[in-house]
Amino acid sequence: MPTEEVIGAIAAVLTTSSFLPQAIKVLRTRDTEAISLTMYVLFTAGVTLWGIYGLMTWQWSIIIANGVTIVLAATILTMKVAAKLAAGRKPRGAGGN
Amino acid sequence: MPTEEVIGAIAAVLTTSSFLPQAIKVLRTRDTEAISLTMYVLFTAGVTLWGIYGLMTWQWSIIIANGVTIVLAATILTMKVAAKLAAGRKPRGAGGN
Repeated sequence: MPTEEVIGAIAAVLTTSSFLPQAIKVLRTRDTEAISLTMYVLFTAGVTLWGIYGLMTWQWSIIIANGVTIVLAATILTMKVAAKLAAGRKPRGAGGN
Repeated sequence: MPTEEVIGAIAAVLTTSSFLPQAIKVLRTRDTEAISLTMYVLFTAGVTLWGIYGLMTWQWSIIIANGVTIVLAATILTMKVAAKLAAGRKPRGAGGN
C-alpha cells in the first residue's frame, strides 16, 4: 500500500471514529444544547457528497470514512432536531419543567 | 472541471463551512457542555492527516477543505479544553458558583 494510502486510512479512522464519542454522548445525555444545528445539517449533506466523490474517483478510504460518518452525523442531527422539536412543544405544554 | 471535482468542491465547501456555525456558537455562548472532547481531539488529528493526504496526492479540494477545517476544529477544541480547565479549577475556588 502506498504511503499516502496508509495516511489516508489513518485519517479516515480518526475523523470517522471521532463522531462515535459525540454520538454516544448525545444519545446518553440527550443534551444537544451546545451543538449547532446548522453545523450538522451542512456536515451531513457534505459527507454525503464526499461519499459520492469517493465512489466516482474510487478511493476506498474516502468511501468507507464517509459512509460511516454519514450514519453517525445523521444520528447527532436527529437527536438535535428531536430536542429542538421537544423544546418547541414545551411552551404549549401544561406547565411541565 | 470533471464532474467528480465539482462534487468534491461542493462537498469541501459544505463540510468545511459546517464547522463555522459551531465555532461561532461556541465562541459566542462559551457553552461546550454537550460537545465531546474526545471527538475534537480525534477529529483535529484526523483532518490534519487528511490535509497531508491531500498534499501527497495533490487533490486541491481535500487540501483546502482540511486546511480550513483544522483551524475551525482547533478553535472548538481549544474552547472545550479551556472550559474543562476552568471547571477543574472551580472546586478549589472560594465558594464561587
